[in-house]
Amino acid sequence: MNHIVFTRDANATLRSKLEHIPASDIFVLVDNNSRNYCMEHLNMGYVPGEHVITIAEGEHNKCLDNVALIWHQLSSCGARRNAVLVNIGGGVITDIGGFAAACFKRGIRFLNVPTTLLAQVDASLGGKTGINFDGLKNDIGTFSLPEWVIIDNHFLETLPPRQILSGFAEMLKHALLSGEKHLAEIMATDLSQVAQEDFLPLIQESVAVKSAIVTEDPNEKGLRKALNLGHTVGHAIESIAIKKGLEIYHGDAVTYGLIAELYLSVKKMGFDPKYYETVKAFIREKYPVYHPVGEPDGLYELMLYDKKNEHEGANFTLLSRPGEVEINQYCRREEILEALEQI
Amino acid sequence: MNHIVFTRDANATLRSKLEHIPASDIFVLVDNNSRNYCMEHLNMGYVPGEHVITIAEGEHNKCLDNVALIWHQLSSCGARRNAVLVNIGGGVITDIGGFAAACFKRGIRFLNVPTTLLAQVDASLGGKTGINFDGLKNDIGTFSLPEWVIIDNHFLETLPPRQILSGFAEMLKHALLSGEKHLAEIMATDLSQVAQEDFLPLIQESVAVKSAIVTEDPNEKGLRKALNLGHTVGHAIESIAIKKGLEIYHGDAVTYGLIAELYLSVKKMGFDPKYYETVKAFIREKYPVYHPVGEPDGLYELMLYDKKNEHEGANFTLLSRPGEVEINQYCRREEILEALEQI
Repeated sequence: MNHIVFTRDANATLRSKLEHIPASDIFVLVDNNSRNYCMEHLNMGYVPGEHVITIAEGEHNKCLDNVALIWHQLSSCGARRNAVLVNIGGGVITDIGGFAAACFKRGIRFLNVPTTLLAQVDASLGGKTGINFDGLKNDIGTFSLPEWVIIDNHFLETLPPRQILSGFAEMLKHALLSGEKHLAEIMATDLSQVAQEDFLPLIQESVAVKSAIVTEDPNEKGLRKALNLGHTVGHAIESIAIKKGLEIYHGDAVTYGLIAELYLSVKKMGFDPKYYETVKAFIREKYPVYHPVGEPDGLYELMLYDKKNEHEGANFTLLSRPGEVEINQYCRREEILEALEQI
Repeated sequence: MNHIVFTRDANATLRSKLEHIPASDIFVLVDNNSRNYCMEHLNMGYVPGEHVITIAEGEHNKCLDNVALIWHQLSSCGARRNAVLVNIGGGVITDIGGFAAACFKRGIRFLNVPTTLLAQVDASLGGKTGINFDGLKNDIGTFSLPEWVIIDNHFLETLPPRQILSGFAEMLKHALLSGEKHLAEIMATDLSQVAQEDFLPLIQESVAVKSAIVTEDPNEKGLRKALNLGHTVGHAIESIAIKKGLEIYHGDAVTYGLIAELYLSVKKMGFDPKYYETVKAFIREKYPVYHPVGEPDGLYELMLYDKKNEHEGANFTLLSRPGEVEINQYCRREEILEALEQI
């Protein structure tokens, strides 16, 4: 993933990257938030040949109707195969924009300018594009790499603290996958400094953890599942929340998942209980208390890889120690229900 | 494209290929026609774990609503990432099924069992998947290769002669791209024999022409445009027909396009007028008379690569002789209007 640029001047970086991409037309995808807070800063969309496509913000707008809206606007502005789409926003925008680009005329090029911490350290990277479908998160999508990902933590200045925390959950996950050193660094972070120059190297380090894994296994045949740490439980919580129309931050769900899955790691993989308690206390201190979104059995159902083959249980990524990952660990119903009680 | 099998026993071949693909579930996509005429022959969809998805037949059903329907059925039957979709039918089925598979859970595997001549020699091969969108043919799609394409010309037995002719237009195009020898062979063909064992090698030869080109340039950066011969005009005719709700066979449109584009080849590339007259007479003898679908100027508009840069004209693939292709030939409005008069 050498197509990621870390910068303190996203405007200049974006312009210079676009100059080197011969394009018939430039399209800019934003939501109402990134349109208000980021597009002007980037000076995009104000010159002829730059078309702006705006969709409403929020996870429930990462849907097929909005993909059709993007395709329709590309089409009606006469976008050709060498057009370029610049996705400016959080994970919703980079996910849906990447998917729309990947399928329009069998693939136009796209750039991501992630403007939330979550998108900067996770969603905009690694080539996963997608939308939610039939109540399932990211159920439709492609593996398609952006030409460039431009990461500038200035954008985090205007981000509500709750959103910073949400992205920080993925940094915590990366640290757990990386090892003791990076984990200590992350747990000592002052989150009020997230938009400062000094914080950029920490983002870069977190991105490097994901990059190394994705480069090894771009299409998620094996190792990439390491990134699922905290997400088997986390996604189940989110899926129920989506179905019930409850708003839940992705990162919050991931931290609840981390508590449950580190507990399973202690029980099954010999993960040091001290680390488990430290991380759990850290999460408890910073993140909201978990309000159950549904019955534990409902969550368990959603985690099952194969509903017809229930005795297999659910498939987890667990840790034997910080930095030592064990993928494809199947856990039984009772183990999982016990773990869910710890959240 | 070494994943194409020519067989006289599609049933056995399909079973043997499926045995070697570890799959959680097998889904079969058909339209009403292929459900009635082909699915039973293949003995598919009658055992547990084989789910049948049926869509209505016809080009206008190659649309986003039907993709959503396929995704919904995959989803509600609990299809996982290692499910397999078997597309049984003509080009509409292999195009839309390939696209649905390419995006479901970021890509499940699929097999094509083309059951029309058009799909056997063209649509099901080469990895182009797609749907029509906003009145534009194949405007949304991906480049995604099927695991296997299984070609059995037994299926052509039940095909109406008009459909055989439609597919045969692509064989004629392949022959023009291949050279004098294959062209002579194709023009001497007895189309009433198309489902016989002796015809299979001719299909195989035609497929080889396309395969060689696609293997060189899978993502259509250059050489693959050779396959556009006859299609710049042909697609314009089809697009107007789709917009007006007129039914037109793809192959018929291609033969009209071939007449116009070989005329341009004579005028601009020194293509031998004798060949042009021979091919034109052959088409006139076998195919229906062209009934204009719209004004020539409307067709010209649709052919323009860049509507804002009209002086560039339209981009054609032309021939200097059979087997000698020249891509990216721009022709002016007057040249094109004159060529359209020849159809």
